[in-house]
Amino acid sequence: MVPMSQESRRRARPVARCARGGTGSHRTPLIAIAAGTAALAPLPAAPQSAPGGSGAGGAAEGITRVEGIRVGHFTYPNAATGCTVVIADGGAVGGVDVRGGAPGTVETDLLDPVNTVERVDAVFVSGGSAYGLGTRGGVMRHLEERGQGFPVGGTGVVPIVPGAIVFDLRVADVRPGPDCGYQAAAAAGAGPVAEGSVGAGAGATVGKMRGMAWAMKGGVGTSSATLESGLVVGALAVVNAVGDVVDPRTGETIAGARAEGGGFADARRILRGEPPPPREGENTTVVIVATNARLTKARAAKVARMAHDGLARAVVPSHTPSDGDTVFSLATGTLAEGFSVGQVGALAAEVVAEAIVRAVRSAHGLPSIPAVRDLPGDGR
Amino acid sequence: MVPMSQESRRRARPVARCARGGTGSHRTPLIAIAAGTAALAPLPAAPQSAPGGSGAGGAAEGITRVEGIRVGHFTYPNAATGCTVVIADGGAVGGVDVRGGAPGTVETDLLDPVNTVERVDAVFVSGGSAYGLGTRGGVMRHLEERGQGFPVGGTGVVPIVPGAIVFDLRVADVRPGPDCGYQAAAAAGAGPVAEGSVGAGAGATVGKMRGMAWAMKGGVGTSSATLESGLVVGALAVVNAVGDVVDPRTGETIAGARAEGGGFADARRILRGEPPPPREGENTTVVIVATNARLTKARAAKVARMAHDGLARAVVPSHTPSDGDTVFSLATGTLAEGFSVGQVGALAAEVVAEAIVRAVRSAHGLPSIPAVRDLPGDGR
Repeated sequence: MVPMSQESRRRARPVARCARGGTGSHRTPLIAIAAGTAALAPLPAAPQSAPGGSGAGGAAEGITRVEGIRVGHFTYPNAATGCTVVIADGGAVGGVDVRGGAPGTVETDLLDPVNTVERVDAVFVSGGSAYGLGTRGGVMRHLEERGQGFPVGGTGVVPIVPGAIVFDLRVADVRPGPDCGYQAAAAAGAGPVAEGSVGAGAGATVGKMRGMAWAMKGGVGTSSATLESGLVVGALAVVNAVGDVVDPRTGETIAGARAEGGGFADARRILRGEPPPPREGENTTVVIVATNARLTKARAAKVARMAHDGLARAVVPSHTPSDGDTVFSLATGTLAEGFSVGQVGALAAEVVAEAIVRAVRSAHGLPSIPAVRDLPGDGR
Repeated sequence: MVPMSQESRRRARPVARCARGGTGSHRTPLIAIAAGTAALAPLPAAPQSAPGGSGAGGAAEGITRVEGIRVGHFTYPNAATGCTVVIADGGAVGGVDVRGGAPGTVETDLLDPVNTVERVDAVFVSGGSAYGLGTRGGVMRHLEERGQGFPVGGTGVVPIVPGAIVFDLRVADVRPGPDCGYQAAAAAGAGPVAEGSVGAGAGATVGKMRGMAWAMKGGVGTSSATLESGLVVGALAVVNAVGDVVDPRTGETIAGARAEGGGFADARRILRGEPPPPREGENTTVVIVATNARLTKARAAKVARMAHDGLARAVVPSHTPSDGDTVFSLATGTLAEGFSVGQVGALAAEVVAEAIVRAVRSAHGLPSIPAVRDLPGDGR
């Protein structure tokens, strides 16, 4: 039950202004923010969807390089939140690995390889913390209308839609619900995926080891690897971590807790002081990995498990008690041979790290929450 | 049952020549090996224990910075294998997280926070693959003689000794057994810990993405962080991974699969080709984390879980189907406050990565298996 006083906060209605795969990019007006400013300012009135990406990673052929995978975002026009849906046309063998200490998930138990259902129809990620799990109903409705789901003789289909949420209630006073899920699913496309401050990443933040006042903007990123063998492994990451985002190729911090005088405070250094414990459960990185490899359900679970290594490499610290870090995997199975599960899992870790780096590089800031692109010499 | 033909291979008897905490260092004679040589040559006759470390990380005050934690190695004089024991004097709250696809472990189920026993007396790591689990009996015997263990009224104590093995059967034709565990436990000291090609790391190798012919020497490493608050977090790692060892501070490969013309083949590049699947179950990194923080059993398990992030950062790829990657945690509990479990877990990940880097930097080569120190311009 949601108390009325909170229910009444759900005032913004979703409208069909979607940042969608192929063309969309959610663009928050650029705001000049000096590194080191503190208090959270009110949200800007209405971040607008606008065609075309800008800067690095406005849109990328990441996870949609896997045939049969489509991605849709819905971003609320009047609040920095939304949801993102990854649809596997015809279903895909699914796996999950939940390693954060504060997860918010749904339909993850059925993904245990011991359990019956093998194929997943879609996976969603939503803002809104635990309230955002309601997003799932809209994804279900869209898939049911298309007739996609687990067939139950005579009574139609039951779409299998696991998902997870991120906490963005400190920047968004709207909680995504079924309408968000429906719009995002309806908008899903197979082309380049809009990245940055869009969908479930619209209100995402990173670098919260010193609290929200020193945070930076997180977002959505995607990346993929395509091999000569025909193997494709892609990832989509919604990055809302307490930790800093680090480029594992160089060890350098890209986005993270800011220092008073500019630059980064460095989570690794903060850890060695006496950091205030981060607020519990107010963070999370959620990742969806997809591959065209034919995998058993147990092997799909192993890929999800290995993919967490990409999260560990690109987010420092990760898997904390304050993060609900979760990885889902989808194996469409059109490629029957020429790979090993270890290769798929290791590549998944690689593209997950890349997707996380892209997420913060693509993001646009909010008032008092600068993005990488707002920093002087942002290193892109 | 071990077939006689295999049983008869257990010909080397352990002797009391121990590389032990504080003074010991296992030194394999330096052998000039050109990067790129291939076939596995026979083992050298008898790697000798010798006093004093040499080069970087011959011995370090790593995990023994945690009061009450002692470490002992036993290295076989006639074969590149052995075992390593970490003793928690008076016991410590224990946790474990097994994330590799090919683990070899014992007494890990009791570490499930749901189960009864909270305190662990020692953790061992042994060479010898699954055969090496027998090492545990000797550790038990040593602890029983000291009267340390879970008290069972009237009949003495039952020492609680979880452990894990690494696969080194391709470089060692001896399998560590109870005598190894007894000797290592008896040798355990609270001073600096010998690192490199010693104990369970004597036969350890890394960089096997192209097979053993292009591998490098792994080993044992240790590291710790001591904070002004009094919090101490240490790690000991036995590094025997299929993957390359990477310094997460720079992204550079330190030890890994070698290329024909010298230098590294780079596991991240190999992954994008069509690598032969690594041989299953012939690798593994085993880590023991210790802290003086007072943790519940569930929180000790969370620390073990977070510590895997250090493994992910320093070993690429890690947690593969060919690795039995396992992290144990020990919380001695002398520090009651001034920390959070997230801080302990995140620091654990940091010192685990450092310990892994130290392991390969401290190692000495075997014929056809060069160590970092054998490479031209080894980057130390």
